[in-house]
Amino acid sequence: MTISDAARRSLTAIVLAAGKGTRMRSETPKVLHAIAGRSMLGHVLAAAQEAGATRIAVVVEPGRADVAAEVERVAPGASTHPQAERLGTAHAVLAARAALEEAADDVIVAFGDTPLITGETLARLRAPLAEGAAVAVLAFEAADPTGYGRVLTDAAGRVTAIREEKDASEDERRVRLANAGLMALSGTHALALLTRIGNDNAAGEYYLPDAVALAVGDELGVAVVRVEEAEAQGVNDRVQLSVAEAGIQRRLRRSAQLGGVTLVAPETVFLSYDTVLERDVLVEPHVVIGPRVRVGAGSVIHAFTHLTETRLGEAVSIGPHARLRGGAVLERGVHLGNFVEVKNAHLKDGAKAAHLTYLGDAEIGEAANIGAGTITCNYDGVSKHRTVIGPGAFIGSDSALVAPVTIGAGAYVATGSVVTEDVPEGALAIARSRQSNREGWAEAKRAALRAAKADKAKT
Amino acid sequence: MTISDAARRSLTAIVLAAGKGTRMRSETPKVLHAIAGRSMLGHVLAAAQEAGATRIAVVVEPGRADVAAEVERVAPGASTHPQAERLGTAHAVLAARAALEEAADDVIVAFGDTPLITGETLARLRAPLAEGAAVAVLAFEAADPTGYGRVLTDAAGRVTAIREEKDASEDERRVRLANAGLMALSGTHALALLTRIGNDNAAGEYYLPDAVALAVGDELGVAVVRVEEAEAQGVNDRVQLSVAEAGIQRRLRRSAQLGGVTLVAPETVFLSYDTVLERDVLVEPHVVIGPRVRVGAGSVIHAFTHLTETRLGEAVSIGPHARLRGGAVLERGVHLGNFVEVKNAHLKDGAKAAHLTYLGDAEIGEAANIGAGTITCNYDGVSKHRTVIGPGAFIGSDSALVAPVTIGAGAYVATGSVVTEDVPEGALAIARSRQSNREGWAEAKRAALRAAKADKAKT
Amino acid sequence: MTISDAARRSLTAIVLAAGKGTRMRSETPKVLHAIAGRSMLGHVLAAAQEAGATRIAVVVEPGRADVAAEVERVAPGASTHPQAERLGTAHAVLAARAALEEAADDVIVAFGDTPLITGETLARLRAPLAEGAAVAVLAFEAADPTGYGRVLTDAAGRVTAIREEKDASEDERRVRLANAGLMALSGTHALALLTRIGNDNAAGEYYLPDAVALAVGDELGVAVVRVEEAEAQGVNDRVQLSVAEAGIQRRLRRSAQLGGVTLVAPETVFLSYDTVLERDVLVEPHVVIGPRVRVGAGSVIHAFTHLTETRLGEAVSIGPHARLRGGAVLERGVHLGNFVEVKNAHLKDGAKAAHLTYLGDAEIGEAANIGAGTITCNYDGVSKHRTVIGPGAFIGSDSALVAPVTIGAGAYVATGSVVTEDVPEGALAIARSRQSNREGWAEAKRAALRAAKADKAKT
Repeated sequence: MTISDAARRSLTAIVLAAGKGTRMRSETPKVLHAIAGRSMLGHVLAAAQEAGATRIAVVVEPGRADVAAEVERVAPGASTHPQAERLGTAHAVLAARAALEEAADDVIVAFGDTPLITGETLARLRAPLAEGAAVAVLAFEAADPTGYGRVLTDAAGRVTAIREEKDASEDERRVRLANAGLMALSGTHALALLTRIGNDNAAGEYYLPDAVALAVGDELGVAVVRVEEAEAQGVNDRVQLSVAEAGIQRRLRRSAQLGGVTLVAPETVFLSYDTVLERDVLVEPHVVIGPRVRVGAGSVIHAFTHLTETRLGEAVSIGPHARLRGGAVLERGVHLGNFVEVKNAHLKDGAKAAHLTYLGDAEIGEAANIGAGTITCNYDGVSKHRTVIGPGAFIGSDSALVAPVTIGAGAYVATGSVVTEDVPEGALAIARSRQSNREGWAEAKRAALRAAKADKAKT
Repeated sequence: MTISDAARRSLTAIVLAAGKGTRMRSETPKVLHAIAGRSMLGHVLAAAQEAGATRIAVVVEPGRADVAAEVERVAPGASTHPQAERLGTAHAVLAARAALEEAADDVIVAFGDTPLITGETLARLRAPLAEGAAVAVLAFEAADPTGYGRVLTDAAGRVTAIREEKDASEDERRVRLANAGLMALSGTHALALLTRIGNDNAAGEYYLPDAVALAVGDELGVAVVRVEEAEAQGVNDRVQLSVAEAGIQRRLRRSAQLGGVTLVAPETVFLSYDTVLERDVLVEPHVVIGPRVRVGAGSVIHAFTHLTETRLGEAVSIGPHARLRGGAVLERGVHLGNFVEVKNAHLKDGAKAAHLTYLGDAEIGEAANIGAGTITCNYDGVSKHRTVIGPGAFIGSDSALVAPVTIGAGAYVATGSVVTEDVPEGALAIARSRQSNREGWAEAKRAALRAAKADKAKT
Repeated sequence: MTISDAARRSLTAIVLAAGKGTRMRSETPKVLHAIAGRSMLGHVLAAAQEAGATRIAVVVEPGRADVAAEVERVAPGASTHPQAERLGTAHAVLAARAALEEAADDVIVAFGDTPLITGETLARLRAPLAEGAAVAVLAFEAADPTGYGRVLTDAAGRVTAIREEKDASEDERRVRLANAGLMALSGTHALALLTRIGNDNAAGEYYLPDAVALAVGDELGVAVVRVEEAEAQGVNDRVQLSVAEAGIQRRLRRSAQLGGVTLVAPETVFLSYDTVLERDVLVEPHVVIGPRVRVGAGSVIHAFTHLTETRLGEAVSIGPHARLRGGAVLERGVHLGNFVEVKNAHLKDGAKAAHLTYLGDAEIGEAANIGAGTITCNYDGVSKHRTVIGPGAFIGSDSALVAPVTIGAGAYVATGSVVTEDVPEGALAIARSRQSNREGWAEAKRAALRAAKADKAKT
């Protein structure tokens, strides 16, 4: 029985996402805090999907429209289940009782605040169910197990119990195999086991790990599936949030590198969960890439560049100090230099904008040359308008193009012009004053300025 | 007896700050090198203040006005004492004999080049004095104690001696408890012990740790107070300076995070000793914050932003690639985009400047919209002048506002205008030429340019 | 016999650079991938030169003009030798048989993909030859030796064999001394040993390490020279490339720091192999320095600055967010602020350009003041032209200087001017329209814009 066999079985994923997250000290619910461009909850939902979840049920804090909206965005069709009272993890799972009552071969319980868990790990976690296990627990060898429930196994490697630290003997405390909290349950047994969990303990809470003792008591099989400690870590404060971010970034960078991308200093490059960097892309140090970015083969992203929602073709070169966003599309061989912003603009093959430029809501033709200091004036205080620049056009430096406006193919705009009317193909547009020189002016002016300053100092 | 009881006792802090720092290879005295926006000496003086120092005496290299000025700036009223000759640490302390001769319950000796020492540690170091100890030494478990003096203790944990490595037996060398150098002395005994320290050693120097042997010989109590090794580290070269910077940055970041601030990549964010980030501030990677910065709740600082002497209200969004300084004040909801600099300017609620702008010596009214490429021309070559922009004003892109100048409430400035005179409320200011298009101009021009280039290549 | 004695002996360096590098997943040959501004092959060739190589022979993939060109650029006069078939490292070395046939005292074999090897290590590797050894092998204590050939030694520390892992006994596998691959051979024996290496093994390849067994069999001396594991690491994929980059960056930073440079956050500063930073330079976090940069004493490089091919004098201050390149030269005391680009321009003592400026192909005189938003328009679509600004000139903000053009000493350019003609010394150049204010315009305009928007929404 392989993981792919297991994947043919139906799977209900219960994701617990109702935690208060007090230690986050935030107005935002804990599970909506983002890592690599996606909420923690989004990462977990995506992992459940990758593991083959045919039904996803998310247990949420009552009345949190923002959490429900995120569920719908990432996993359309998933159900949400408010958890009115907080009476422990087993109680939380049963908030999604409606989902459990629908037949499924496998059930997994995951947490909205353990964002590093991969779909592959969840698939491994459910695999023993297809082999006949009733329960599978996820566990890790803890560097320091203090505080964790210990997973106790017999000589054959079968789980005999999960022992909370306070109940553990001295020998049991030496066990380093710690309960990660995530669990898979056979659909046949899940509801029966969960509803039998009691709250006869100091805190009066219903603990999900108690399902193990019940299954063992019933002589059902309980398997243990191992995972690296880092992958199982939960996020409870902002320090842990940044540790989780670092973990996901390491994965994303390594995967890009092994695919043929040079990250000169990977630790200074921040990617998003959906970043696509094709072969022979080179990324200099200090680059930040937000969601919805794809970079074509052989392109170079220079330092201090910030990208979101951007598509770069092949052999594009941008930055240093470039900023692209809002649906920027740069086709093959486009070159953007420093202090250039592109927003919702489409630059065709070989177009260039090398310095101090803002291109917003624009269409730039093949091989057009946009001079330093060019600004598309796309906003009139009320609406946004488009600028269209034809192929081969030459926009002189320090020009302002007041949209809506069209510059024809091959046209010139003279340096320093404010273009308010369309420019025909091949024409020159000029809108500036003639220069006059006033000889000898400077000395008198400087004297006057100094006198004024001295006067002011006196008063 | 608690630390807070101890704090009611009077405390003289002697800070040794006369070291040459040759290995720094610098024109700047070692103790003035900065970490997290404050000199190393400043960090130590602040720690002494936090530990309750009622009198601070700083031993300095003779004739260093810059060191004396820093002392006065950070710890007004502290005295400075030139150390003419360099005859060892005990000799250095006695350079501040005048301060020691004034009665104090406790005396601590700290070093201007161990900038990670906290006020809390200094308070712990003096605490045993209130319990009757004559001397307390600060010590750490060294990962590798080679080169350090070993702190030897008896079975009861009392210090019996500090043994320099060269004098240590093989057994003593195995001791990992190392002398950090800092010491607290009872005011009753301090001067008597210090003046009895001799220089009968190979180097002919007066060593402060010898106070321990004298106190033990007198059957006075000598306590040891432990500290993490990293906190006790001194700075002798620029590698160690950067290690100390990293240590202080880790503290500052962690404290911000636990208070409810998201640092997406804390290792890429540099704070200053006095940075205040309120709850739910989000800081993207690659941000540098210098002294005197406060950021209001819910604000977002995008990547590649550089801030000093700036105050941001709540729900402000700045960057990427923003630079604020010189007394910038941004009130609630202000938005600054990329390649925007604000210096000594005040932006009121909801004002916006999204691209390629310089706002210097300016006042911007509520909800004013500053177009891309706007520049306040605040300098005439001799003096600086102010620009005032009224609430709701709309400054068209690529405009220059020549200060002193006032733009009235709700007024417009047309794109590309150079505004030299005040604009009344609700008016339009326009200062630009009409556009003219010269049809067919481009082809002839290109031909001429190419011909000129070819000619030039021939010559 | 010292290393410097050894250096008087003639040395042939054979550098193997023909590897396919499939795991790099790149169109670029592996050895041409760059680290710290220089190809990996360039680093190795430079190390061979430092070790005293009098002749360098590089074994290359046939038909790779790019590799041959890099060899000629870094080590002019070196020979290249195509390796037609890939039959093992000994076979690769014999591709340079022509070089081996010319008499040399010493021969070293290095690899184009182990870029961290220093000239000093290569010098140490050849040193035993001068003492009579026939072969010297480079070896390191491996943290985990799995997969490496083990270097076996006798009681006297002489090498007895290099044992591949698959042929090693259990005891031999416990040996952690691993073969780094690099080898030195006495010129007297090199060719004879190499040609005797056979291919009687599973892969049918000729292995260079087999030279050891042959030399031992001949009762020739075989020495082992140790090196840190990190220095011996090869690069086979992009993850390893970034590890090598990090190793070289650490070296470069540490060397700068010990020379008296403050790197506030060294891990965020990227240097090139040839970067020169003089004493008391201060580099803020997040700085990228490409090849051919020299920074004079006491200069400050603020955050987010990107430099290549630039020379800064003493007491220069640049950034944050500055970008210099293409032969920028800044003399003493020049100040560049944020969002300023300088390309192929020479700024003389005390010149200033504080904001949002592009200076390309320009010469700026002493103490000239370049206003915010100034742009040199150096490109007419076909050729580049120069701008010359005299000493003490004042360029008003938002000006465009259309090259070729000269601004005389002490002249003024009025804010917002497009300067197309030369400005005489001491004159004022002005090229802009007068401002007119249209009272009451704004309200009507806003109403019209809103109406238009509403209309559009309806359609």
